[in-house]
Amino acid sequence: MMKSIVSSKYLACLVGSIILNLLFIINIYVGGQWKLSWSLGAAIEAETVAAIYCSGHGRAYLDGLVVVGNKPVCDCNTCFTGPDCSQFIPHCTANADGLDPEYLTARKLPSDQLRDPPASSEALHLASSALVVAGWHQMSYTYGGQSFFSKELAKVVRKVHASVGNAVTQNRFIIFGAGSTQVLSAAVFALSPENTSSPAKVVTSVPYYPVDKQQTQYFSSQKFKYEGDAYRWKNRSDCSSTNMIEIVTSPNNPDGQLKKAIFHGPNVKTIYDHAYYWPHFTPIPAPSDEDVMVFTLSKLTGHAGTRLGWAVIKDETVFNRMMIHMRMNSMGVSKDAQLRAFKLLNAVLEEGIGIFDFAYQTMKSRWERLVQTVSLSNRFSLQENNPQYCTFYNKVRRLSPAYAWLKCEREEDKDCYAVLEAANIIGRQGNLFGAEDGYVRLSLVRTQDDFDILIERLHKLITEEDGDKTM
Amino acid sequence: MMKSIVSSKYLACLVGSIILNLLFIINIYVGGQWKLSWSLGAAIEAETVAAIYCSGHGRAYLDGLVVVGNKPVCDCNTCFTGPDCSQFIPHCTANADGLDPEYLTARKLPSDQLRDPPASSEALHLASSALVVAGWHQMSYTYGGQSFFSKELAKVVRKVHASVGNAVTQNRFIIFGAGSTQVLSAAVFALSPENTSSPAKVVTSVPYYPVDKQQTQYFSSQKFKYEGDAYRWKNRSDCSSTNMIEIVTSPNNPDGQLKKAIFHGPNVKTIYDHAYYWPHFTPIPAPSDEDVMVFTLSKLTGHAGTRLGWAVIKDETVFNRMMIHMRMNSMGVSKDAQLRAFKLLNAVLEEGIGIFDFAYQTMKSRWERLVQTVSLSNRFSLQENNPQYCTFYNKVRRLSPAYAWLKCEREEDKDCYAVLEAANIIGRQGNLFGAEDGYVRLSLVRTQDDFDILIERLHKLITEEDGDKTM
Repeated sequence: MMKSIVSSKYLACLVGSIILNLLFIINIYVGGQWKLSWSLGAAIEAETVAAIYCSGHGRAYLDGLVVVGNKPVCDCNTCFTGPDCSQFIPHCTANADGLDPEYLTARKLPSDQLRDPPASSEALHLASSALVVAGWHQMSYTYGGQSFFSKELAKVVRKVHASVGNAVTQNRFIIFGAGSTQVLSAAVFALSPENTSSPAKVVTSVPYYPVDKQQTQYFSSQKFKYEGDAYRWKNRSDCSSTNMIEIVTSPNNPDGQLKKAIFHGPNVKTIYDHAYYWPHFTPIPAPSDEDVMVFTLSKLTGHAGTRLGWAVIKDETVFNRMMIHMRMNSMGVSKDAQLRAFKLLNAVLEEGIGIFDFAYQTMKSRWERLVQTVSLSNRFSLQENNPQYCTFYNKVRRLSPAYAWLKCEREEDKDCYAVLEAANIIGRQGNLFGAEDGYVRLSLVRTQDDFDILIERLHKLITEEDGDKTM
Repeated sequence: MMKSIVSSKYLACLVGSIILNLLFIINIYVGGQWKLSWSLGAAIEAETVAAIYCSGHGRAYLDGLVVVGNKPVCDCNTCFTGPDCSQFIPHCTANADGLDPEYLTARKLPSDQLRDPPASSEALHLASSALVVAGWHQMSYTYGGQSFFSKELAKVVRKVHASVGNAVTQNRFIIFGAGSTQVLSAAVFALSPENTSSPAKVVTSVPYYPVDKQQTQYFSSQKFKYEGDAYRWKNRSDCSSTNMIEIVTSPNNPDGQLKKAIFHGPNVKTIYDHAYYWPHFTPIPAPSDEDVMVFTLSKLTGHAGTRLGWAVIKDETVFNRMMIHMRMNSMGVSKDAQLRAFKLLNAVLEEGIGIFDFAYQTMKSRWERLVQTVSLSNRFSLQENNPQYCTFYNKVRRLSPAYAWLKCEREEDKDCYAVLEAANIIGRQGNLFGAEDGYVRLSLVRTQDDFDILIERLHKLITEEDGDKTM
């Protein structure tokens, strides 16, 4: 009897164990996830690198810095050092110069998840934005022998604009370039008159995005010439017969305002740089419907390094001339960048409002901290921020721009950049934007580390100012 | 006793089964290949698309044409159609115009392997060239806040040149661009004099690569101007004091010859376009050691769509000016393209002589078939092909260029392009290369399908010519 019980227990265990065996076998040979062949090695390699722990103050990359053997090491944020980026560098300068799009995915790293498991939505994001590329993927110059540009990517771009409601894309042409930088240049070339003795005047209104000026000057020719601040030309009668090209950065860089064109008329061409026209930076009053509208992945998902921008164009001739520019300049755009954008924008669509809301909440909370800090001071002020109705959120809301346009209010602080530099803060000088040096642009789109240090330094500067006042 | 035997058998089975389960569990949780998390979905997706069968006459891509639902369909080679590209299009035109780098990996597709298992070296190639990219990989404009260009990629480029022996890279600067197209343009801008009243004369010797002319004309300004065939300027005394920039395509496109510069002297700057200076196209007499040497991934591994070229530069000032160009033009180069190149060039290094030999054998056998076909004819001739010593293969060998430079020998065949077109063959007109229209360039770097149809059409044309002769 005893033995019988024992053996029937054995039997039960055996059956259970065999069922488990079968389940494993089914998983291995039938279940999709164990059938991997050629991608397996690369996937393990990528996940291994992604799991390198950098204390939340850095990252390791497959093609990042390699110090010992073949293993990549952590690439640390500005003020951190050490093999795992855990050591803070005292008296480190607050870097508020330029964009570091890591802010968009700050807490979404596999290496961080090892210590701090993510919410399921974040894990989903990681999975949906991952990309696997075969060695032989899209080797040709063109897609199907026809175009340098992916039709499937253009479809996804249209869907994203439709879901956000920030641009009209029906019956419009879409062209891609290496970031909005190359697309803007292509537009200037394409809108310049052919066979003319006097080059088109390219203008931007102060404060303007410095690259527009630098780039137009760099490529200036018989076709076009940079002519500075748009306001300077506004009421000059000799402009009515001149070909003008106005670049309107809206929302503006540096100050985040929804700028409008100054020039209108038959000889005027307008390029709307809508890089920041996304709900995490600005209310969206209505879908934009301009002749030439420029967007970029870098300000949407944060992938600046992918170099993928696009233009939405009404006129076929302008589109064709931009296509010629892209051929002459670089024979199209990296298909790897197009594939990455395709994958990322599909992930954006899958997540719905998710990514915009994550980015908006990040920007909003940073602005709240900044406004609170600056409000303690009489020495500094920030740009205007009048609420507007946003069709994306269906409510009235304020701007939450990528940059603060800080003004030094005291007369003796003419060089605002120097004032901040003395307090260990690096911004960008006002004169680069055509404005006075009483202004400095501070970037709020950098890592959380950079932002935290910026606020700390600003707070110290302002507190000491108060200390002075009480004396 | 009986029960005891049964239960001990049960026990043995149970122990065995438990051990098997443990092995499975160890595999799943400890063994590398079953630890995949965030990359798994993307890997399955990529392998599923790669396994779509296109009869060896096409491919399906993740971002390729989508017809039904979300599943990509086959993108067929020129003369094939149908859902699996199995239907040949009769009387289809032979396309010998331009490059389709698929010829380098023709038999290495997973979908083909399903029917025709690959040699292990090819499977290795597939695995070593596969790439997995996390959604958050390298989002910033720069690497480590410093450069637009990957230092690790530059290291691999140096290693590849060292292993092939085609260029000196020690104590040289390396810069990347969107294909050799953008790099060549950057070099022309960088070598032009600053602050001059007379633009530098940019010249190329006939037959020249058409893009050099088109691109220089497109961007011409106060800095430089395209001035046509270099030979035209050779003996003119007014050139000794003029700034000259000569672009030397060597091996040359269209004719594969190892061209040398025509101009020398203190006012002369030379750009060597070495796109084809790899052992599958040409003997390598010695490592090149020119001031500015331009290379591109498209002619090395065939990844034209990745848009990744580079220059090896002696002079730091020239390097710095090219860096400015890359910033002004496109804020650097797609990091996705750089990562892909990093992965592919590492795969090239891992394979040693393998990939060059595969490509060389392909080119050599195509040339043998072409020479054999054309040798039957008095109407057509091919470019010179004198053997030279190749340091890569340690032997004397002939050229195996990417293009045939076909000449129509009969006086009445002045328009050689039209002669071929009438025979259903599309080449590229001689006048595009600054030569006479008695010449046509035929591309030998397209799919095996395209090459087979080209030879078939040429053979037909030549056989009919012989038929005429006998009458």
